[in-house]
Amino acid sequence: MPTYTTTPEIDTLLQQANAATMRFKKTTILQRAELMHHIADAIEALDETLLQTAQQETNLPIARLASEKARTVFQWRSYADALASGNVLPVRIDTALPNRMPAPKPDLRKTYLPIGIVVVFCASNFPFAYSTAGGDTASAIAAGCAVVVNAHSAHVKTSTIMASAIAAGIEKAGYDKALFSHVVSNGFENGKYLVQHNLVKAVGFTGSYAGGKALYDIAQQRQQPIPVFAEMGSVNPVLVLPEKLKANPQKLAEQYASSLTLGVGQFCTNPGIIIVPDIPETNELLEVLANEITGTQPAAMLHSGIAESFHKNKATAIAQADVTVVAHAPYTAASDGNAIVALINSKNFMANKVLTHEVFGPFGLVVKYTSVQDAAAVIESLEGQLTATVWAEAEEAAANEDLINSLSEKCGRVIFNGFPTGVEVCYAMQHGGPFPAATDSRFTSVGPDAIKRFARPVSYQNWPDNLLPDELKNNNTLKIWRTINNQLTQEDVSV
Amino acid sequence: MPTYTTTPEIDTLLQQANAATMRFKKTTILQRAELMHHIADAIEALDETLLQTAQQETNLPIARLASEKARTVFQWRSYADALASGNVLPVRIDTALPNRMPAPKPDLRKTYLPIGIVVVFCASNFPFAYSTAGGDTASAIAAGCAVVVNAHSAHVKTSTIMASAIAAGIEKAGYDKALFSHVVSNGFENGKYLVQHNLVKAVGFTGSYAGGKALYDIAQQRQQPIPVFAEMGSVNPVLVLPEKLKANPQKLAEQYASSLTLGVGQFCTNPGIIIVPDIPETNELLEVLANEITGTQPAAMLHSGIAESFHKNKATAIAQADVTVVAHAPYTAASDGNAIVALINSKNFMANKVLTHEVFGPFGLVVKYTSVQDAAAVIESLEGQLTATVWAEAEEAAANEDLINSLSEKCGRVIFNGFPTGVEVCYAMQHGGPFPAATDSRFTSVGPDAIKRFARPVSYQNWPDNLLPDELKNNNTLKIWRTINNQLTQEDVSV
Repeated sequence: MPTYTTTPEIDTLLQQANAATMRFKKTTILQRAELMHHIADAIEALDETLLQTAQQETNLPIARLASEKARTVFQWRSYADALASGNVLPVRIDTALPNRMPAPKPDLRKTYLPIGIVVVFCASNFPFAYSTAGGDTASAIAAGCAVVVNAHSAHVKTSTIMASAIAAGIEKAGYDKALFSHVVSNGFENGKYLVQHNLVKAVGFTGSYAGGKALYDIAQQRQQPIPVFAEMGSVNPVLVLPEKLKANPQKLAEQYASSLTLGVGQFCTNPGIIIVPDIPETNELLEVLANEITGTQPAAMLHSGIAESFHKNKATAIAQADVTVVAHAPYTAASDGNAIVALINSKNFMANKVLTHEVFGPFGLVVKYTSVQDAAAVIESLEGQLTATVWAEAEEAAANEDLINSLSEKCGRVIFNGFPTGVEVCYAMQHGGPFPAATDSRFTSVGPDAIKRFARPVSYQNWPDNLLPDELKNNNTLKIWRTINNQLTQEDVSV
Repeated sequence: MPTYTTTPEIDTLLQQANAATMRFKKTTILQRAELMHHIADAIEALDETLLQTAQQETNLPIARLASEKARTVFQWRSYADALASGNVLPVRIDTALPNRMPAPKPDLRKTYLPIGIVVVFCASNFPFAYSTAGGDTASAIAAGCAVVVNAHSAHVKTSTIMASAIAAGIEKAGYDKALFSHVVSNGFENGKYLVQHNLVKAVGFTGSYAGGKALYDIAQQRQQPIPVFAEMGSVNPVLVLPEKLKANPQKLAEQYASSLTLGVGQFCTNPGIIIVPDIPETNELLEVLANEITGTQPAAMLHSGIAESFHKNKATAIAQADVTVVAHAPYTAASDGNAIVALINSKNFMANKVLTHEVFGPFGLVVKYTSVQDAAAVIESLEGQLTATVWAEAEEAAANEDLINSLSEKCGRVIFNGFPTGVEVCYAMQHGGPFPAATDSRFTSVGPDAIKRFARPVSYQNWPDNLLPDELKNNNTLKIWRTINNQLTQEDVSV
């Protein structure tokens, strides 16, 4: 039984974090980048205990956890390097024109300040990369914010080990340990208390729609509303065009089954819906898919609550009118996610909103369409998504440009002849999307641009050079790219 | 009496706008920049009728309106040029690493799509620059969005003329006129209907806290919440340090009075609070200020509602305990704003939240502090601001760095030895600030970065070059700056 954090303890942590931020906000992007590498070092140095603990708490295989640990370290390092380049929080400088008519132009220089203390809610399905020391925490520290992590109840021990690594990194770099706090909660109350707290200025969340939306609403109902970036998953539709299907139905079925069942389907980018033409080759696709799914070895899901929801939501979906089951892997245990694929035609699919809801786990719904227009209507009927995928031959893609473009209207990332699972950590990643995939489609939660969520611009007008933050001073000592009088440059400001 | 738009008409306008957006979103940033210059041309070509109409509707002088018209044209042109440079909506490209172990890296390319239809609420105090053809409309068109303007009831005729110029610019550039719609409302219901409408995806607003917060709440309570950028004004504190005051109390008083009464105090950046040390020179400051204020010629405010609120809020403020009136320009008419300055000490100021509320108009409150610690406490007690200003000698600024830095915590723009009125249109401007100055401190409503409010990033994974948006193609035909594999460059992608 973990020791739960009390609300008076939370008050103290937040007051200490606030005091620490007063000093931390004076750091340059280079200093924060250095701190982030120290934290990365400390995570990297964690021994096998981390992986074993996480394996016990999440049922995820050691190999997967090892690669997720490496990804987590890479996030800290790559966000640090991007931050240090000045390309994430871009500096803008407009120099004075004292003789401009009818009025002089002042000197204006814009940089970013931390938004304030950020509360991070951990994901159940990524105990490292989107939890305690995950992308939200790295983004917030990069922006200069103190962070309070609300540990996920399913992996508190893992979370505590990760928290100790962050603390070690902060200590090594010589900063105040209060920059990072770790809250262990019994139920929802601590999370609510944190989001309502006056000292908290932003929230990062990865998880279910119900959880994310609840926190979002609490944050908007505050006297001072605060931004919440909640990534709430989606069904990630895969649209298959006829020529591509005809070319190799077997390969497509195998690859779809593989993406659908990867990690027991416990990814927010899991391709829960595949939209296929009603042509003879679809039967072959379904046959191969049935074989693949039936042959999938069920495995334990992340925790009992997730397994319970999977079985319940799956049952709800296949109980809907006109849904038929294509294949169902054998039941092994209540804790296991046994893969399942079901089938419906486009008309019945569009008539039933229940079928557009995410079933978290290895559940795939095949939707048969009759024409390009019909496929377009299915896409149009969908809510906001993290990703959308199209499978097409080059010629039919070019011939169906409008249909393909309509996918980008619905999501944050569009994939061509691939699958959405596997979220690359890089500048060009967009992980987010129109509501309800995320609460703010203008931001990403993966890649260095995720830092922008927790920074706010501030302009300095006619400020003395010696009092400006380093990145705004005439001399470009940080050697970053800056926009000076409308031009990107690495030069100093000429005075 | 204007013809009011009905809700069925709004439905039709939004459906037409939505259809127009489907085509408009395929435009490149260069094409949209060209459209924006056409709109700027059309606004520039408007004759004296525009100024005369606006003068009649807003009581603003012709000279001020002429300069606001020029500012409006400049906004369209400078946002267009910034957009075309690629520096506002920065493209990120990460090329594939097919042989990377343990898994290949896909090709990912991120650009921005329009967020959807934007509703713009017009400001009473800027009939051109922050109304129908103002910064919000220019930002939304730049992002590729269709716009519906809800005309301000106080200047519907002006708004209608401006709407015709936008329509002319759109026609000249060869786009669908449904990209821009003009709604005339009788009361609040149309505005509410627009913000609740399923086809509307974002809102821009400039005006009062009450109005902005009401729209924000409506937008957050939708089934699909949408972003609202509301700029809601503030009291824009001016902090004066002792040595600066001692150096020239007369000049400071004159300049403060001038900024306070500029445009009958009807600017969101009006310096409503001046925080001064309790030293002998403060008496001279107050004497000069009293002379200046008493000698200010009252002038008609924007409309009767604003004048009524000014008189009421001013009376409320001076009726608070321990507030004394320093000077009050003579009453001339109910429609006029007669300037007033009042005085209070820091302790009583901090004890009364009513005094931190904006009194829109020429109302200034002098707050006397006793020490640096006391001044810091006054700053700390303030809510989020658009701007904060410090007056200091170079040496005392350097000696009080923490106090001066605390100003930046509270606002979007900090000014040194100047005044906040006069909002430069440039890259380095930040017009916004922590709540309640604005609803989202991470965005600005002035300067080209304002475009970011209405754009959302989308990543294309392994997409064929011929189907990519132009800005993402291998060949950099738009000649923009792009981040390719972590480096800013204007080169093509090497394949």
